[in-house]
Amino acid sequence: MIKSRAAVAFAPNQPLQIVEVDVAPPKAGEVLVRIVATGVCHTDAYTLSGADSEGVFPCILGHEGGGIVEAVGEGVTSLAVGDHVIPLYTAECRECKFCKSGKTNLCQKVRATQGKGLMPDGTSRFSYNGQPIYHYMGCSTFSEYTVLPEISLAKIPKDAPLEKVCLLGCGVTTGIGAVLNTAKVEEGATVAIFGLGGIGLAAIIGAKMAKASRIIAIDINPEKFTVARELGATDFVNPKEHSKPIQDVIVEMTDGGVDYSFECVGNVDLMRAALECCHKGWGESVIIGVAPAGTEIKTRPFQLVTGRVWRGSAFGGVKGRTELPSYVEKAQKGEIPLDTFITHTMGLDDINKAFDLMHEGKSIRSVVHY
Amino acid sequence: MIKSRAAVAFAPNQPLQIVEVDVAPPKAGEVLVRIVATGVCHTDAYTLSGADSEGVFPCILGHEGGGIVEAVGEGVTSLAVGDHVIPLYTAECRECKFCKSGKTNLCQKVRATQGKGLMPDGTSRFSYNGQPIYHYMGCSTFSEYTVLPEISLAKIPKDAPLEKVCLLGCGVTTGIGAVLNTAKVEEGATVAIFGLGGIGLAAIIGAKMAKASRIIAIDINPEKFTVARELGATDFVNPKEHSKPIQDVIVEMTDGGVDYSFECVGNVDLMRAALECCHKGWGESVIIGVAPAGTEIKTRPFQLVTGRVWRGSAFGGVKGRTELPSYVEKAQKGEIPLDTFITHTMGLDDINKAFDLMHEGKSIRSVVHY
Repeated sequence: MIKSRAAVAFAPNQPLQIVEVDVAPPKAGEVLVRIVATGVCHTDAYTLSGADSEGVFPCILGHEGGGIVEAVGEGVTSLAVGDHVIPLYTAECRECKFCKSGKTNLCQKVRATQGKGLMPDGTSRFSYNGQPIYHYMGCSTFSEYTVLPEISLAKIPKDAPLEKVCLLGCGVTTGIGAVLNTAKVEEGATVAIFGLGGIGLAAIIGAKMAKASRIIAIDINPEKFTVARELGATDFVNPKEHSKPIQDVIVEMTDGGVDYSFECVGNVDLMRAALECCHKGWGESVIIGVAPAGTEIKTRPFQLVTGRVWRGSAFGGVKGRTELPSYVEKAQKGEIPLDTFITHTMGLDDINKAFDLMHEGKSIRSVVHY
Repeated sequence: MIKSRAAVAFAPNQPLQIVEVDVAPPKAGEVLVRIVATGVCHTDAYTLSGADSEGVFPCILGHEGGGIVEAVGEGVTSLAVGDHVIPLYTAECRECKFCKSGKTNLCQKVRATQGKGLMPDGTSRFSYNGQPIYHYMGCSTFSEYTVLPEISLAKIPKDAPLEKVCLLGCGVTTGIGAVLNTAKVEEGATVAIFGLGGIGLAAIIGAKMAKASRIIAIDINPEKFTVARELGATDFVNPKEHSKPIQDVIVEMTDGGVDYSFECVGNVDLMRAALECCHKGWGESVIIGVAPAGTEIKTRPFQLVTGRVWRGSAFGGVKGRTELPSYVEKAQKGEIPLDTFITHTMGLDDINKAFDLMHEGKSIRSVVHY
């Protein structure tokens, strides 16, 4: 049992409390990781709000981290003490039906227990004053020390700066992967990106990598257009400046609609707009954003019968252990400008400020350094 | 101007009237066709009901025909008098953005006028007592003589029986094509087919051609399971025999859901069930049925984010002039058992009986012989 500073969510909708928790040693197939830095993502805020049906309290949030292996449990073969790692909320066991399908990154090996805030054996490694504290998304990077299954860790080069590449643990990879892996945008295609938060900006990077001919950035906050332009967006649409439905505006701008669209907000009305701004006959829309529990997407079936395709993407369709190292390499080569995403840094004691900044729309990403 | 026996829909929701209409000669790029036989499809009934927002009256319905070229207009080069043809409600000009995309069969060259019941020059070739009568779906096969654009006719072998292969003009090709062209079902895949009308039965044939390992036929009328079994279905589900949602039943039957599903009814609740019975991570659902105007499909976005794909298919994704002749060849070789679909035949004078049989659920297809 080791002591670890952690930001604990004791209850929904309350500030995190910085306390010293107890972390049990890794069991068989598990790894103890010292987190060096972690991003603070909207999904953390969503769960903290109490709206997440899988949210259980008290828990340790955080799922966008970078760290170093401190100890390995029995039978762990792919990682050793000192390895640098990025925690994966989508594991990759390489053995389950999903991993073997060749069609998805949604490994289900630890999904059931992870969804309950527990390790694969059905227990927690965290406790505070003797009471168990739940894990979160299989990661819990808001603790200096955390325990993960071996299959939930991507090994990355030691020379990659953990306080930057931690962002590849969620939003940045999600946005780029949705474009390259899920939609498979081809050279010359037209692309519309709804919402210019971290995921939307990353999707712009992906579209630029794919050599899209036109990258339409859509947001109700025009201040976000500056960075979108820097990353490669070519057109900018503020729905507040138009009286007609935004899908109609985009269809007119593009002689019939875009080849691909991406919803990066989590708003079901915007998901509909994103589908309906796609070109008849072939346009594909990818849902990336996480919508509030209970909400539903809607459209007329004619939209699909006339050739549009509706998809979704989780973690950009990226297989973490296999593919994430190549994202780290791209970041090291400067092909993924992670600095653009890091608008604020802070220590763990100030982590609640990161949530405030996010709620106020003032940050892309805050990174917490331990 | 020639005289032609035709079944005219003078008003919504009224029986067709068999009268002698006047047919103007084909203009430039147009072809006069003598229809030898025509199927009666649910879409004809849907438009006759008055529910079709594109339905205009008086009109000559019918879009599933087989015929012989009687005369060609100026500039027609791909067809000659005596050629056997199947009318296409989805033209193939080979010149428009859609045809050239390589991604869709939805040629738009004559779409705008066709949707208004008119020939490409904005006029009708039909009249009765001097008053124009509208075309329908660019075909109007409920007239012994009809005029179509050259690009709306598939040339087929002269030894193919027109009174059978006429069914390849809509339902049978739509069902098979949705499986082979739109979904691209692969060998060994599991398939669920919702609704065992003409399109659903054709989808079973397509799934069998694709060597699907399991073909689950779903219908509330268990009498339809006999023919479904003959065509290759392996499992049969009657939603009326289950208390839980049908998607849950199918997910349980298939260890997580099917690889592909097809909605062949036109019911938006069934479209949702068809999507949600697909396997997490990769299952794809194809909407084929035409839903009532104003209705919408709905689901939780999580269904897509976790890897399901929602598509639609029109005329099975088949390019009529290029691909339909190969369907005719398959039928001639016995690979598409058209006889199974033809439950009734009749003369034009009895065409209203075909609608009655359809409404009563007593027919798969009635074929009208001129």
